[in-house]
Amino acid sequence: MRHFLTTENWSRVGLQNLLNQAGLFKESPFSDDLKGKTVALLFFNPSLRTRCSFDVGVYQMGGKATPLQSGTETWPLEFEIGATMDGLAEEHVSEAAKVLSCYFDLIGIRAFPKFQNWEEDKQDKIIQSFAKFSCVPVFNMETIVHPCQELALMKSIQDNVGSSQNKKMLVTWVPHPKPLNTAVANSACLISSKFGMDVTLLCPNENFILDDRFINAAKVNAKSEGGSFRVSHDIKEAYDGVDMVYAKSWGALPYFGNWDAEKPIREKYKNFIVNEEKMALTNGAYFSHCLPMRRNVKATDAIADSPKSLIIEEAENRLYVQKAMMKELLKGGEK
Amino acid sequence: MRHFLTTENWSRVGLQNLLNQAGLFKESPFSDDLKGKTVALLFFNPSLRTRCSFDVGVYQMGGKATPLQSGTETWPLEFEIGATMDGLAEEHVSEAAKVLSCYFDLIGIRAFPKFQNWEEDKQDKIIQSFAKFSCVPVFNMETIVHPCQELALMKSIQDNVGSSQNKKMLVTWVPHPKPLNTAVANSACLISSKFGMDVTLLCPNENFILDDRFINAAKVNAKSEGGSFRVSHDIKEAYDGVDMVYAKSWGALPYFGNWDAEKPIREKYKNFIVNEEKMALTNGAYFSHCLPMRRNVKATDAIADSPKSLIIEEAENRLYVQKAMMKELLKGGEK
Amino acid sequence: MRHFLTTENWSRVGLQNLLNQAGLFKESPFSDDLKGKTVALLFFNPSLRTRCSFDVGVYQMGGKATPLQSGTETWPLEFEIGATMDGLAEEHVSEAAKVLSCYFDLIGIRAFPKFQNWEEDKQDKIIQSFAKFSCVPVFNMETIVHPCQELALMKSIQDNVGSSQNKKMLVTWVPHPKPLNTAVANSACLISSKFGMDVTLLCPNENFILDDRFINAAKVNAKSEGGSFRVSHDIKEAYDGVDMVYAKSWGALPYFGNWDAEKPIREKYKNFIVNEEKMALTNGAYFSHCLPMRRNVKATDAIADSPKSLIIEEAENRLYVQKAMMKELLKGGEK
Repeated sequence: MRHFLTTENWSRVGLQNLLNQAGLFKESPFSDDLKGKTVALLFFNPSLRTRCSFDVGVYQMGGKATPLQSGTETWPLEFEIGATMDGLAEEHVSEAAKVLSCYFDLIGIRAFPKFQNWEEDKQDKIIQSFAKFSCVPVFNMETIVHPCQELALMKSIQDNVGSSQNKKMLVTWVPHPKPLNTAVANSACLISSKFGMDVTLLCPNENFILDDRFINAAKVNAKSEGGSFRVSHDIKEAYDGVDMVYAKSWGALPYFGNWDAEKPIREKYKNFIVNEEKMALTNGAYFSHCLPMRRNVKATDAIADSPKSLIIEEAENRLYVQKAMMKELLKGGEK
Repeated sequence: MRHFLTTENWSRVGLQNLLNQAGLFKESPFSDDLKGKTVALLFFNPSLRTRCSFDVGVYQMGGKATPLQSGTETWPLEFEIGATMDGLAEEHVSEAAKVLSCYFDLIGIRAFPKFQNWEEDKQDKIIQSFAKFSCVPVFNMETIVHPCQELALMKSIQDNVGSSQNKKMLVTWVPHPKPLNTAVANSACLISSKFGMDVTLLCPNENFILDDRFINAAKVNAKSEGGSFRVSHDIKEAYDGVDMVYAKSWGALPYFGNWDAEKPIREKYKNFIVNEEKMALTNGAYFSHCLPMRRNVKATDAIADSPKSLIIEEAENRLYVQKAMMKELLKGGEK
Repeated sequence: MRHFLTTENWSRVGLQNLLNQAGLFKESPFSDDLKGKTVALLFFNPSLRTRCSFDVGVYQMGGKATPLQSGTETWPLEFEIGATMDGLAEEHVSEAAKVLSCYFDLIGIRAFPKFQNWEEDKQDKIIQSFAKFSCVPVFNMETIVHPCQELALMKSIQDNVGSSQNKKMLVTWVPHPKPLNTAVANSACLISSKFGMDVTLLCPNENFILDDRFINAAKVNAKSEGGSFRVSHDIKEAYDGVDMVYAKSWGALPYFGNWDAEKPIREKYKNFIVNEEKMALTNGAYFSHCLPMRRNVKATDAIADSPKSLIIEEAENRLYVQKAMMKELLKGGEK
């Protein structure tokens, strides 16, 4: 049995197989791959695309998805092994995971960090616990990484930029009124390095560098896949000649949980917005961003609506790549 | 591609075709009209009948509905073009509509007015924005009009009162502890005038007259369809000899957003409740009201439970007319 | 037409038929019993197992379930006949039940007590009202009893302990930080006595004895089915030689609604936790508890995770017994 928690333990070949299968689903949406199968979609946070694309995808494959909103619809969960459960949590994840495994063939989990303590959040305890106790494959609908978004991004790159090998990828921090999850930034670095791109991570200063786990993984990927990975704090130099610009905002990790102190630092860099002036420095680059995206804060309307914008196509690709991933998990995963 | 946002831009023939099709669905509930099709049901407000009747109707037509509750389940949306999105909204409707269009074949929207500013609310910005940016047909599950309820009402009239032409229709304001949306009142005037009825809109005084848009549309309909439309503030005269009584409460538009001032005015007219005394003035009229309906506030138990009450039948008709409407939208609408 | 509101008015033979049918569904999950059928699942409280097991079960039987979360998704309901509805409730249950009957073939209701006034709560007004006004069968997804859980428990007993007749059943009160619903305790006494077990209800003192309705029903069952029923407040004596231990916490009825006064009384009995020392007194008993269960408060990890623990199997059985129950209701119920 194999889970899909992160792309880190999936090979480039295994991921490319998913992308190829996604292409087949794009051409021919209906199948019997999930006939009689049931898929739990457990959300600890809001969702639009993820909820819809999985609900629709499972239906198109002949199966049945059951979306569950934690908080309003289910019981609060305990994740510590051996806990004396005399606090708020009514149910231990070991029971929740085992019981869901009785009813469902696959379990998807969305569980964002709590934004109090990065050392705690980086353990990704919710999905790791479900994976530990579940008797069926578990997949990640965004935690501290967002591997479904990674596949959708890479499919958009391959369908537009072409072969990813040694194409120049810019992952750029952009402004936002709130300190956001690093998941999609971590994921953009993981997938672009895994597919042999020459990756630049652009952020205002060292406060915005991503966690070592992902920086190191990107460097290891670059080495094994013939690409490169570097960090830059220089906008002009970073945009110069790139083939693809991927934007995302995130909060500064050294100030994690101490967000009042982080706010003035973050707000100094509104100039990191993606605009036509910056895009003019590129090699006619495509632009994308996972959605939702605050217009005229992270990227201007001109960029979001330009013919080079892949934001809608990337969201559409979520449907295809997720169907491929579910099909693969039911086969027992990449051998 | 055609939307179903309001009946104002649908012809009487086109609407009658929907009612005829609804009759076929009442006799024979199952079809393949939505086989492999997906329908988003996006709710910005609570719902019982609408959510259930669409979910069931889509299933009976072989398709898959995905109900979405905005607020708890999805991201807050921005509706202004060109906005700098540094407020609460995380996602622009242009992306939300385009992305939903990638996953779904039809999109239904429920979005009540915000009750702050009628000039703002009367623009019906949420559904108009979805219709503008969507690549698939959009239908109205109640905004400032409620066209699905209109069809259900007209089907109830045709099935009980008989041919609507020059039948006497009373649309009466009734009391309520809160100032409600004018949508169903607007809609009752639109549909009864469109189908050639002689319509009286009864309300306590000029403060409760509906927006010019709907009053004027009803007058235009009356002229073209051979019926009539007038406003009355006299209970006895208005009930006299009518064939159908349709009740609804709404807040007084001149006080829109200034509801503390409106409350004492509204509360003076508790005598507008529909009761046996008033119904005795009619031509043995049928009674209806969209649901939910506060019993013994808007209408007495005796009226709600009388054999002439069509409240449950009208709710049941929602199922049939909505199936007809979805079938029609997928054909590309009335040509 | 027959409802499934409580097992009290179902015979042992009728319930055994459901358990036998459940066994068939466990072996062969797919059927056409609900082909083209729709099932409303109306939740006034949170749920994990119930929502999932019904949603999946209906799908596996070829039908369509529509889960509805009251509060966030639907209108507040009025349950009093003849009420003047000028308070918070927007809709009367008579309309809600009749309208749901138009759209659905079966209606499931979860409605916990409000914990203010037991005389009020014990009338079980929500589900009784739905049953009264519905035109289709209504089933109980937990109110002041939990008959689906009863069937799952009895199936677990029959599959593990063997024939229930005169097997020794201990229903034991266990600690909890909050005063809980008595539903599952009531139900455990009902079902075990109905199936001829020798039942001991163990609780700290007379404050924790269940309502007369259930104590009396258990005594009547014991008499007619050849078992026995007694109450004990002595842990050692109660555990001695039993074949099955079923744990549940609940609030003390004499303090119902006066929970601040109840708390210190309840908190004196943390020693009622199920642990290895107590289980050593039994006849190698199996252990179970409906889920969710607070670990190391109600039962230790060692007990929850022991090979004799049936907690997951009982939850899994929910799926099978509920399918059997729905199949039976659609046949018109036990004749």
